[in-house]
Amino acid sequence: MSQDNAKDHTGAGPPPLPDGFLDTLHSQFGNKVESGQAIREEHGSSEAHYKSMLPDAVVFAEDTDDVVKLMQLCVEHGVPLIPFGAGTSIEGNAAAVRGGVSLNMTRMDKIVAVHAEDFDCVVQPGVRREELNQHLRDQGLFFPIDPGANATIGGMASTRASGTNAVRYGTMRDAVLSLKVVTPQGKVIRTARRARKSAAGYDLTRLYVGSEGTLGIIVEITLRLHPIPEAISSAVCSFETLDGAVDTVVQSIQCGVPLARVEILDALQMKAVNAWSKMYYREAPTLFFEFHGSESFVAEQVETVKALAQDNGGGEFAWSNLPEERNRLWRARHEAYYAAVNLRKGAIGWATDVCVPMSRLAECIRETHADLEQSAIPATILGHVGDGNFHVVFSIDPDAPEEMEEVAAINQKMVERALAMDGTCTGEHGVGLGKQNSLVAELGDAVEQMRMIKRVFDPQNILNPGKIFAL
Amino acid sequence: MSQDNAKDHTGAGPPPLPDGFLDTLHSQFGNKVESGQAIREEHGSSEAHYKSMLPDAVVFAEDTDDVVKLMQLCVEHGVPLIPFGAGTSIEGNAAAVRGGVSLNMTRMDKIVAVHAEDFDCVVQPGVRREELNQHLRDQGLFFPIDPGANATIGGMASTRASGTNAVRYGTMRDAVLSLKVVTPQGKVIRTARRARKSAAGYDLTRLYVGSEGTLGIIVEITLRLHPIPEAISSAVCSFETLDGAVDTVVQSIQCGVPLARVEILDALQMKAVNAWSKMYYREAPTLFFEFHGSESFVAEQVETVKALAQDNGGGEFAWSNLPEERNRLWRARHEAYYAAVNLRKGAIGWATDVCVPMSRLAECIRETHADLEQSAIPATILGHVGDGNFHVVFSIDPDAPEEMEEVAAINQKMVERALAMDGTCTGEHGVGLGKQNSLVAELGDAVEQMRMIKRVFDPQNILNPGKIFAL
Repeated sequence: MSQDNAKDHTGAGPPPLPDGFLDTLHSQFGNKVESGQAIREEHGSSEAHYKSMLPDAVVFAEDTDDVVKLMQLCVEHGVPLIPFGAGTSIEGNAAAVRGGVSLNMTRMDKIVAVHAEDFDCVVQPGVRREELNQHLRDQGLFFPIDPGANATIGGMASTRASGTNAVRYGTMRDAVLSLKVVTPQGKVIRTARRARKSAAGYDLTRLYVGSEGTLGIIVEITLRLHPIPEAISSAVCSFETLDGAVDTVVQSIQCGVPLARVEILDALQMKAVNAWSKMYYREAPTLFFEFHGSESFVAEQVETVKALAQDNGGGEFAWSNLPEERNRLWRARHEAYYAAVNLRKGAIGWATDVCVPMSRLAECIRETHADLEQSAIPATILGHVGDGNFHVVFSIDPDAPEEMEEVAAINQKMVERALAMDGTCTGEHGVGLGKQNSLVAELGDAVEQMRMIKRVFDPQNILNPGKIFAL
Repeated sequence: MSQDNAKDHTGAGPPPLPDGFLDTLHSQFGNKVESGQAIREEHGSSEAHYKSMLPDAVVFAEDTDDVVKLMQLCVEHGVPLIPFGAGTSIEGNAAAVRGGVSLNMTRMDKIVAVHAEDFDCVVQPGVRREELNQHLRDQGLFFPIDPGANATIGGMASTRASGTNAVRYGTMRDAVLSLKVVTPQGKVIRTARRARKSAAGYDLTRLYVGSEGTLGIIVEITLRLHPIPEAISSAVCSFETLDGAVDTVVQSIQCGVPLARVEILDALQMKAVNAWSKMYYREAPTLFFEFHGSESFVAEQVETVKALAQDNGGGEFAWSNLPEERNRLWRARHEAYYAAVNLRKGAIGWATDVCVPMSRLAECIRETHADLEQSAIPATILGHVGDGNFHVVFSIDPDAPEEMEEVAAINQKMVERALAMDGTCTGEHGVGLGKQNSLVAELGDAVEQMRMIKRVFDPQNILNPGKIFAL
């Protein structure tokens, strides 16, 4: 499975730019264009294990007009156009498979408006989630979607990101109220108004969210916000077994406890976290919790969950109630990917994710863990266990090509297991390059409906070509 | 605005069925076909003010194979095919504008599976929401989406229905995990797996939800469920002014109170409810509340909201804590449409809805109320005030055509006001026939993206033609 497309295209090499195209770019965009090797490398490499696939040039858009102008140029000349945010995606989602122009959105980083009374805000795609939350804090508001990396909002919308808070607050599917999008037809459309719900026509907002830049370029996002809860409490609890940890979460949700965050980390991941983030946790299967609400409601939630944890072989709860302690805890969680990759010196990472119905989660994690134990390659399990979503991070020796093959096989088995449990091949990373065959295995003929939309929205296949599916 | 399409088509009359088509239907579907006047009337009339637009025949599907077979036949012969549920939509969503076959889904009424541990279930489209909730009760689960009418789940998915619980539990957009759909290409696709979230390709689920039967026929729905809360408390509170009622809701939400239901009814609507449902409420602007949670959390929510209500000119809270009292209260709310229409004997109803950002809601309701007071036609305001969504129900004399024109003008002004406030022309009724021009006013060029999808999914315009937009 997995990297077939990438291999094909890097093998053959991407087609060259049309004659004179780079000159036209420079004349129209001046110093917003860069085509040096270093900057192209930066836009064609990935956090994860994918080979570099470089764009021919990078344009730094400063406003919607830039995007419209560039879109027209690329359509006219048949040149690929790949939107690019913080570069933190991990399925090769922004790789320039066929060369072309990488459209860097990070200069479009204005917070256009905050409507505190309506619990929403309007931002440009280059705004990063941490900066947004800093900006919102004084108004008692926060934006809950947290994929770990300090990603751009545009990138998060494009991959339908979720992360640690999704169990309570949903994913980017739920967080995006409306989008402004530049289409290959050169139109600037707005997909919805600012009302919290609507029955006005097809849900274009949700169609663009998760389309990985293949249908249009997002130039503005209206986001739902939430009030910062009166009380926030975080805790860490280790368990005798992975099953005990998973069962605690499943039972908590069945009891109606609105967990704000609940993350699982296996023993090896805890060891990696201790080494990387200089923490001193027990190296056993562990849950990181966060509770939101009024003081008394948080206390009530905690009581329920503690009792369940105890029944399932959990230890003491180590509390982090001060903001700085909480931040330290969650920073350690957010660094878990790097911690896992660095279990071996000089290793590269391969991160994968699946998501299954809650009733199958313990079994899915148990069987995956057994597979990992059969392999000599260090690999950790961690994830958003309240959604049924978990990751495996492999720490691969880049000079041992047989390790890539071994990981591909384990990944394939993991996807097949998730699909057999009526789960999905990716809970939050997206399809990108790596999950294209898995998508077909998961949704069959429905993928043809996706292709129909792609072909009619982007008939020349200009936008992030080679992603999600073959055409 | 509004009924242009309907008038055009009823004026000219729909095209006749192709020669021999009805015979073919009978020979293929036997006693599942009906073409008598009464049954056609039933499938071509509407709850609301639309003229009857009858199908030529009605087919009662019993399984997915029936739907596939009928789809193939209609595609082959270019005959319109209109899915039909409980017939409770109110924007003419299921009218047979161009004749053809009405596909009655109510015999496909099986609850296929309930996955209690996963909080989801799989149902056929003809299942009605009240029957589903009866079935789920013993397992401690409920399906929260409640548009008032005992609609079918398929119809609710098709119009992206919401209703009284949406403020807490979301709309059909949030409730549908996955769909099985028969496409005009004759394929049976499944749009997603049963995982609670996924980043696997375009969000086809959300594309079909709210597409009003214009893109495919829904034959199975996987729904998210919720645990029945430990405590449920309902209350009624009247206010001196509409503003006071609205402000209480806005402030409650800003305080983070997770209201499960909050409905506004103006003084005239309360008078209508008293008359129709034999209740004895004060005839003043009123809120109907419901609180869900643990005993102590409900108590805490109630305390916050009572204090806010008092600050805003609210009276005493009249509690309904016993299930039978609660049911009586919500039955009265659900009958409010009929209560309003029956303010005049022999009147017909016209129901409209808009949804605006919360910060504009008080102003929007106040100005709408002023418009209604200028008119001699009885009209009430009621709605799901926690979403910024409200309805006006007009009680129209069917023998006074000038009243239809007057209502059309008030409706138009209401939509324009909502759009000027960055709201939507319909929060939950859908576009159907009545809001087609409003949709264009609301979303402009984005409607062309919708048309592109329609044209490629249904190139012959077989599926519920004449709805949502002109092609």
